[in-house]
Amino acid sequence: MWIEKDNHLFGNFEFADFTEAFAFMTQVALVAEKMNHHPDWTNVYNKVQIKLSTHDAGNVVTHKDWELAKLVENIYLKWTGH
Amino acid sequence: MWIEKDNHLFGNFEFADFTEAFAFMTQVALVAEKMNHHPDWTNVYNKVQIKLSTHDAGNVVTHKDWELAKLVENIYLKWTGH
Amino acid sequence: MWIEKDNHLFGNFEFADFTEAFAFMTQVALVAEKMNHHPDWTNVYNKVQIKLSTHDAGNVVTHKDWELAKLVENIYLKWTGH
Amino acid sequence: MWIEKDNHLFGNFEFADFTEAFAFMTQVALVAEKMNHHPDWTNVYNKVQIKLSTHDAGNVVTHKDWELAKLVENIYLKWTGH
Repeated sequence: MWIEKDNHLFGNFEFADFTEAFAFMTQVALVAEKMNHHPDWTNVYNKVQIKLSTHDAGNVVTHKDWELAKLVENIYLKWTGH
Repeated sequence: MWIEKDNHLFGNFEFADFTEAFAFMTQVALVAEKMNHHPDWTNVYNKVQIKLSTHDAGNVVTHKDWELAKLVENIYLKWTGH
Repeated sequence: MWIEKDNHLFGNFEFADFTEAFAFMTQVALVAEKMNHHPDWTNVYNKVQIKLSTHDAGNVVTHKDWELAKLVENIYLKWTGH
Repeated sequence: MWIEKDNHLFGNFEFADFTEAFAFMTQVALVAEKMNHHPDWTNVYNKVQIKLSTHDAGNVVTHKDWELAKLVENIYLKWTGH
């Protein structure tokens, strides 16, 4: 689900419509704020693209990114019913 | 899932934790605002209780309440994986 | 803004419409999840009622409630422009 | 606040922190879903960049984009207290 490239983790998430995509984003927002580690993310209608790296470490991928990536993945898998 | 009583529809929804409950509420909020028909709802941690009636019709249950109730039910069933 | 009564803190918050009320709730949700201290709250259209107490302490008001209450107050004051 | 360029409207919005930025996004999401006209938007911590065009009209700027742009502007001005 996640691809590491150019010192970032990239993930693409797709939903039935905007309401699902934004509910997913809300759950991710709650988790990210709690970790104090925020994504660089883009939404268009039913699609969400998330890009993770650690600013404080000089914009490289750290364990904090993998930790958030794993939490986002769990949220998404629950959404998609697997 | 919904119970009609005292001129209201009542529904109780339960989730794994607060992040899921609030993501569900966000999706319901998007649907309710679009319909211009808003719930009377209460949240405590992983639980959401929704109460529906139509103010403009004198606080009775109308087809608008059943329409929103059905949409909320569909959102919830997707969450719970059925 | 907050009233202490029956071992709870009670606050009432009013907005221009549902979109403002729910945006306020989203900001409070982010802060509450981060503190791991969640409100008992009710929303009807442009109104939000929040009730705080500490479950783990036997449903009495503790410093955690006052801490969340103060954060919610700051969010609300920014909304209302004071 | 909005710049028209390359058949899109572009707006940049800045907040005190992530919780404010995401609450703003939630309010915009409610308004956009109601209009059935959704933004292409990116968030990084306290910054939100919004890009608007009308897909059905061949990705050009239409009155629907200006209508949403105006609503977003009003939401932002209220946030920033002007």
